[in-house]
Amino acid sequence: MKKIVVLGSTGSIGVNTLDIVRRFPKQLQVVGLAAGNNHLLLAKQIKEFRPRVAALFDKKKSALLAKEISKGTTLLSGADGVADVARFADADLVVSAIVGAAGLLPTLSAILANKSVALANKETMVMAGEIVQKEAKAHKVTVFPIDSEHSAIYQLLLAGKRDEVAKIILTASGGPLLRHTEKMKKSVTCEQALAHPTWKMGPKISIDSATLINKGFEMIEARWLFDIAPEKIDVVIHPQSIVHSLVEFQDRSMIAQMGLPDMRVPIAYALFYPERKPLPFPSLDLTTLSGLTFETPNKNRFPMLQRAMDVLSAGDTYPAVLNAANEEAVGAFLQKKIGFLDMHKIVRKVLDAHVPVKVAKIEAVLMADRWARLETEKRIQKIS
Amino acid sequence: MKKIVVLGSTGSIGVNTLDIVRRFPKQLQVVGLAAGNNHLLLAKQIKEFRPRVAALFDKKKSALLAKEISKGTTLLSGADGVADVARFADADLVVSAIVGAAGLLPTLSAILANKSVALANKETMVMAGEIVQKEAKAHKVTVFPIDSEHSAIYQLLLAGKRDEVAKIILTASGGPLLRHTEKMKKSVTCEQALAHPTWKMGPKISIDSATLINKGFEMIEARWLFDIAPEKIDVVIHPQSIVHSLVEFQDRSMIAQMGLPDMRVPIAYALFYPERKPLPFPSLDLTTLSGLTFETPNKNRFPMLQRAMDVLSAGDTYPAVLNAANEEAVGAFLQKKIGFLDMHKIVRKVLDAHVPVKVAKIEAVLMADRWARLETEKRIQKIS
Repeated sequence: MKKIVVLGSTGSIGVNTLDIVRRFPKQLQVVGLAAGNNHLLLAKQIKEFRPRVAALFDKKKSALLAKEISKGTTLLSGADGVADVARFADADLVVSAIVGAAGLLPTLSAILANKSVALANKETMVMAGEIVQKEAKAHKVTVFPIDSEHSAIYQLLLAGKRDEVAKIILTASGGPLLRHTEKMKKSVTCEQALAHPTWKMGPKISIDSATLINKGFEMIEARWLFDIAPEKIDVVIHPQSIVHSLVEFQDRSMIAQMGLPDMRVPIAYALFYPERKPLPFPSLDLTTLSGLTFETPNKNRFPMLQRAMDVLSAGDTYPAVLNAANEEAVGAFLQKKIGFLDMHKIVRKVLDAHVPVKVAKIEAVLMADRWARLETEKRIQKIS
Repeated sequence: MKKIVVLGSTGSIGVNTLDIVRRFPKQLQVVGLAAGNNHLLLAKQIKEFRPRVAALFDKKKSALLAKEISKGTTLLSGADGVADVARFADADLVVSAIVGAAGLLPTLSAILANKSVALANKETMVMAGEIVQKEAKAHKVTVFPIDSEHSAIYQLLLAGKRDEVAKIILTASGGPLLRHTEKMKKSVTCEQALAHPTWKMGPKISIDSATLINKGFEMIEARWLFDIAPEKIDVVIHPQSIVHSLVEFQDRSMIAQMGLPDMRVPIAYALFYPERKPLPFPSLDLTTLSGLTFETPNKNRFPMLQRAMDVLSAGDTYPAVLNAANEEAVGAFLQKKIGFLDMHKIVRKVLDAHVPVKVAKIEAVLMADRWARLETEKRIQKIS
């Protein structure tokens, strides 16, 4: 029986993780749950899975949660409560699925408490990949990817040795605005940007897919997850979202992982690795597809992708700043305070204003994150 | 230094194998060569690679060969000579690339002499897969595939466990007659049938690709190479020949191996396994492709594929009979004695007339092979 903790249990990844747990009651047991502010769903999950410990980040709502829950589960709240769940002594594996920078510290807590992590929170790697992997090594734990792209690469790397890899190619659907010109993007609404053509995801990541910054973050994540040089990481647009990523080896053999878009497949892979459990989902039938196509991303049309590639090369606190600035800008766009194209304008200015420092300790990352948010907030206010 | 023997060194696979050897002079040494009747090319190869032993199957031409060769290489001839090269004491690995049923006994000789085999001769597995794999196990040697499809599968199976495989999917280009109706096929010439759209191969295998029996043989080969149940082996038409094959695991993750069509890639993989050497060939650039498509093969249009699937299920000496009958029929077609559609008509009748026996010893296979050839020859004569 593998004992798992799910951080971000009420989000899209969290809900899908619990769906897998439900299917394997003899193999998986939920011992801890943590969520942001959806106390009603968390209460429901606690009733069903009866974890030993649970936390709600939103302290104000935690009293409401307490009313819903009977004995047997210790209730915590706030950032400290979430971190306590992350390092809960009984857990074997922590599913890190909190959205955004808020996921970094709980994930690090889990690693420092000698827990292996199934990582959906890409900010952990974008902001502090070097530190996180150093700690994972020191604590002899593994970080398994949950992102469909990185899960694909994890599987593909089994077909060769790390030093035989010529290139890692991440696929991007291109999002809902793939064929939009700059002019068309000026008037893009939230609803349009949220309408992802192939994957059903949360709002933040949907907007990040529309700007393609998401793919840039995934490049940074891949850099640290697989300890691979930035120049060996590439992106292709693949509108059908069937090929989840590819690895080219130095003998010119290219291996691809494919499947219908269903996050439960990579989640189950991370939960059960190295085993592949039978999953009763539909098989991919290649003969029903109209064709698989691949394009080079147009970086002029997707400047956010270019910014992410810039910070991948630049390193230091730049990725943390890009992440924080983007998070604030996306928030403002979702609240309709700024337009679609304003997001990049603001983020670019914040990057330009940043004075980078080396990332030796997590404090440097957190400071850069705070600075970038204040700086971004200022620029949002100017516009709105 | 890996010492290799190349059986069928003057054929397409043999020549490509020697191209790889030429590129890795410090890692690979040719200690034995064997060819059918191309004594001029064999002489050239002997001069370049200076093997310890060489054999020409065609005894009449072996005197001509002797004149060409200086000392240092022991020259043998005939079937016994080829078998002697196959079990040459010094060799570590035997590349089995003789075309047709003639490849079976030399390959078996190599295995019985404790040599691992890099197998391009699919007849070895089609005719006697069960015996060959039993002997390989008993002699603690490995049979590595060279066929691009089986090399793909070999690589893909590294991404999971054997009992987690849901399906193996072989891709078929569909050959030059993919869009031909039965009526159009009536008048197909040798030249048309030989004009393979994506792979440059020898004449026998090109015709087998035009009838798709080649893909059926590969299903049988896969059955024994990977010890996989016949019902888990499938075929899709993939006209672009970029995806060389796929494996679906029971968690619905599908892994595909891709690359530009170049036999040197799977050959190098078999020669160096588990290493992947850097090969200076062009990378596959997905963004230059117009799209990857997949279709279900139409078994009415490709009855030879259906025959191969029949014998895969039927087992016993049926696959050996299909192989022998097909080999004779293709020979007659290449000599313009019979028409394209006659090949299937004849092969079907031979299969119908066959009384199968269990394949416990190699003699049963050889007898079925002889019977089928005589039977096929009779029917060819009737037509021509």
